[in-house]
Amino acid sequence: MNMSAASERLVVIGGDAAGMSAASQARRLKGPDALEIVAFERGHFTSYSACGIPYWVGGDVEERDQLIARTPEEHRARGIDLRMRTEVTEIDVAGQRVRARDVDSGAESWTSYDKLVIATGARPIRPEMPGADAPGVHGVQTLDDGQALLDTLARTRGRRAVVVGAGYIGVEMAEALINRGYEVTVVNRGSEPMSTLDPDMGRLVHEAMEGLGITMVNDAAVTKVLTGEDGRVRAVATEDAEYPADVVVLGIGVRPETSLAKAAGLPVGHHDGLLTDLALRVRGHENIWAGGDCVEVLDLVSGQERHIALGTHANKHGQVIGANVGGGYATFPGVVGTAVSKVCDLEIARTGLREKDARRAGLQYETVTIESTSRAGYYPGASPMTVKMLAERRTGRLLGVQIVGREGAGKRVDIAAVALTAGMTVEQMTALDLGYAPPFSPVWDPVLVAARKAASKVRAS
Amino acid sequence: MNMSAASERLVVIGGDAAGMSAASQARRLKGPDALEIVAFERGHFTSYSACGIPYWVGGDVEERDQLIARTPEEHRARGIDLRMRTEVTEIDVAGQRVRARDVDSGAESWTSYDKLVIATGARPIRPEMPGADAPGVHGVQTLDDGQALLDTLARTRGRRAVVVGAGYIGVEMAEALINRGYEVTVVNRGSEPMSTLDPDMGRLVHEAMEGLGITMVNDAAVTKVLTGEDGRVRAVATEDAEYPADVVVLGIGVRPETSLAKAAGLPVGHHDGLLTDLALRVRGHENIWAGGDCVEVLDLVSGQERHIALGTHANKHGQVIGANVGGGYATFPGVVGTAVSKVCDLEIARTGLREKDARRAGLQYETVTIESTSRAGYYPGASPMTVKMLAERRTGRLLGVQIVGREGAGKRVDIAAVALTAGMTVEQMTALDLGYAPPFSPVWDPVLVAARKAASKVRAS
Repeated sequence: MNMSAASERLVVIGGDAAGMSAASQARRLKGPDALEIVAFERGHFTSYSACGIPYWVGGDVEERDQLIARTPEEHRARGIDLRMRTEVTEIDVAGQRVRARDVDSGAESWTSYDKLVIATGARPIRPEMPGADAPGVHGVQTLDDGQALLDTLARTRGRRAVVVGAGYIGVEMAEALINRGYEVTVVNRGSEPMSTLDPDMGRLVHEAMEGLGITMVNDAAVTKVLTGEDGRVRAVATEDAEYPADVVVLGIGVRPETSLAKAAGLPVGHHDGLLTDLALRVRGHENIWAGGDCVEVLDLVSGQERHIALGTHANKHGQVIGANVGGGYATFPGVVGTAVSKVCDLEIARTGLREKDARRAGLQYETVTIESTSRAGYYPGASPMTVKMLAERRTGRLLGVQIVGREGAGKRVDIAAVALTAGMTVEQMTALDLGYAPPFSPVWDPVLVAARKAASKVRAS
Repeated sequence: MNMSAASERLVVIGGDAAGMSAASQARRLKGPDALEIVAFERGHFTSYSACGIPYWVGGDVEERDQLIARTPEEHRARGIDLRMRTEVTEIDVAGQRVRARDVDSGAESWTSYDKLVIATGARPIRPEMPGADAPGVHGVQTLDDGQALLDTLARTRGRRAVVVGAGYIGVEMAEALINRGYEVTVVNRGSEPMSTLDPDMGRLVHEAMEGLGITMVNDAAVTKVLTGEDGRVRAVATEDAEYPADVVVLGIGVRPETSLAKAAGLPVGHHDGLLTDLALRVRGHENIWAGGDCVEVLDLVSGQERHIALGTHANKHGQVIGANVGGGYATFPGVVGTAVSKVCDLEIARTGLREKDARRAGLQYETVTIESTSRAGYYPGASPMTVKMLAERRTGRLLGVQIVGREGAGKRVDIAAVALTAGMTVEQMTALDLGYAPPFSPVWDPVLVAARKAASKVRAS
C-alpha cells in the first residue's frame, strides 16, 4: 500500500463485531490515503454471530457460514489490512505499538499505531474442576467451539446431554440439544434458571422447561466431570448426585478478556472490563478506544457499571468507535439491560433492574406481576403472558420489566426498554399509545396492564 | 335501590367501552350508597369489541359472544342500573337531566343527573348514493351489523364480494371474506390502500393484497350500488366500471356520533368530535365528561386535535373518566396515532405523522425507508420488513414511523410510539437498548437501522 506522509495508522485488536464494525465505519469515513487500518484476529473467522451458535448446533441454521456477516476477504476488499490467526501479545502504550504473534509459525513482530481499538471480547468461564477438559465437554463461545461440539454430537451414540448453567447460553443450548433428540439435564447453581430474572419469574421458565421434557436441577454446583475408561466424559457430578452424560455443554457465562489491557496498565472496573468514557475512549487514553464484550457499560437505570456480553452492544460500540476514530463524534450513552431469549416456544425477556439490583442500588421499590395474553383473548393463538414490573416507590419511576410467555411476549420488552431510557414513570406509561388490534394485543396491552397496577400501587404507597 | 340523602347520580350515555369502563371504574371507587349509576344503551349489547367483528365474520372467532367482555347482567350485578334498548334523545344541560326513549315501546322519560358521561361512540360513514341501503349491502360497526352480514353470507350462493374502502376496516374485511372463500374486490377512493400510511408504504400493502388474490381498485369512487330484479345488490358502480357483487361491505370509516351533544350546545371541534380537557371533562362543563369514539383527542406530535375511533383509546378514556367521576384525578394526555392491522399474514403499522401530516403541521422533515428482516437473516422465518421513518429537519425529533412486513413487524411500532411520547430524537433512538437474539431480531433491530439512517440524514441536512 502506498502510504502518504500524512497517513495515520489505526490498529484494531479483535476481528469480531466491535472491532470490525469500528474498522469498517472508520474506513467509510476515511479512505486508505488518510487512514491505514491493521486488524489482528487470533481465530479463523471475522464478524460472526456468536449468538447464533446455539441455533446452528440445534439445526435451525444449517451452515456455519450463515453466521458469518463478513469474511476476512470481504474486509480486505474494503481496504482493511486484516491479519488472521495473529494474536496480539502485548500493548506498549508508551511506545504506541502492539506485539503480535503468528499463531501457526510463532513469529512475532511489533506494529506501531496512532490510534488503537481494543475489542478482545470475552472468554467463557470454565470451572476449575477435575475433568473439565475431558473429550465430550464443550464450550460454545466461538465458531470453532460450535464445530467441535457438532463433531462430537455426530460421533457420539449416546443421547444423554448435560448442560451446566441455566443462563441464556444454557437454556438456548438445552433447546438445541432437545431439537437434536437428546435427553437434556440442566444443572444450575442458582435457585431457578435464568438468574437475569427474579426467581419468581425464573420459576416460570423452570416449569416450562420441564414441560418440554428438560430435567432441571437447581441449587446444584457441579464438582467434577467423571470420565470413562476411554477418557471421555461419562457423567457430571454435584455434591449430591451424578448425572450420566454422553456430552456436556458448559454455559456458565463469560468474563471480559482484558488480560492484555491490564498488563498494559489500562483501567478496568469491578467486573474486570475496560473502563471508557461516553465516546468509548479508554479512560485517560486519548488515542485508545475499547468496545464489545471486553468493556463495562453504564447501566442507565442504576447508574452503576455492568458487564454485558451481547452482539447488539458490540455492534453499536463498533459504530461509535469507528465514527470517533474516523474524525466524527459519537457516544454510547449506556444500556438499560435488555435481553430476550427463548427455549422452544417459551419467550423470556427482561430489561432494567431485578429486585436484587434495585436493593443493591439502594432504591425502594414496588413490584407487581400480572397475567395477560399476547392477543385479544378471543383471537386464535392468544397465549398467556406474565409481566413483572418494578417501579420506584414514591416517584413511580419505572425500574424494570420481566416477561415470560409464548409467541409475542419477548419483544414486548422493547416498550419498557424505551420507557426506561426516557425515564418514564409507570403512571406515564399507562397512557402509552401502543399498537392495538385483536391479532396483536388485548385492548390493554399486557405492559399497560402491569403499568396500571404498578401505578396504583405507587399511589397507595 | 335505597338511596341515602348524600347520594349523587351519574348518568352514562352509551354502553360500550368508554361508557361502561367509566361506570365500572366509578363504581369501584364509590359504592352504591355514595353514587347511583344509570347507564343507557340503545342497542342489544354492552362492552363488546367492535374491533373483533372482522375476525368473527372471517371465522377466526367462532361465537359472537366471545366479543362481549361484559354482559348487561354482569354490569347490573356490579350495581349499575343499566337500561338496554333505551336511547337518549336529549340532554338538558341547564336542567341536568336527559330524556330517554324505550326503543321498543317508544315510551319516554326524563332522568336527572349530578354527573354525566357522554360515550355515544361513532357512526359509520354511509355514502349518499342510490342503492346504498339495498339488501346485501352491509356496514360492520356493531355486533348487529356483523350478525346481519353473516346471515347474508349464509344465504347468498354467489361468492363475489366488493369491499368499499381500503382503510383498517376495509382491509380487515377483505381478509375476512377471503377466509370465507370469496372472490374479493376492494374499491378505494385513494391512490393506494391504507391512507393512514404514506402512499409509498400503501403501495406495499396494495402489492401484498394482490398477492393474496384480492383485486385492488384504487382512485375509484363508488357512485352507486346496482340491484337486480329481486332488489338485492348485484354490482357496485364507479364512474368507469362496474364490479359484480353478491355482497357489499362498506368500510369507509366513521365520524363521531355527537348529534345529541351538539343539540345540547356542547362544544365540538373540526372533526365533529366533542372537545374536552385533559381530565376528559367537556370544555366549559364542570360535571360532564366525554370519551371514546365521540371525542377528539390531542395529537402529541402535531399538537392538533384528531378523531381516532379505537377501542384501546376508549378503554383508557373510560378509566380516566371513572377515576375523575369517582373522586380521584386522572388525565388522558393524548395520542401519538399508533395503529396496527393485518391482512392475512401481512402486518401494517404506523405511528406519529405521515408526510402530509408533517407538512400540514408546518414541519420540515427528512424521510428514510429501509429494508430489514424480522429476525437475524440466517434464522428460520426471518421475513422482510420495510420501515419508513420521518424526523424533523435540524432538531432530529422523531415524527413518525410506518412499518409493513410479516410476522413480527406490526408490534415493532410500539418502540416508535414510546419514543414519540418521550420526544426522542432519531439520534437518541440509535442507542436504544432493544431486545436482541437471533430468533427475535437482527443484531440491529429494523427500527434502529431506520433511526441510524435518519440520524445520518438529519446531520447532513
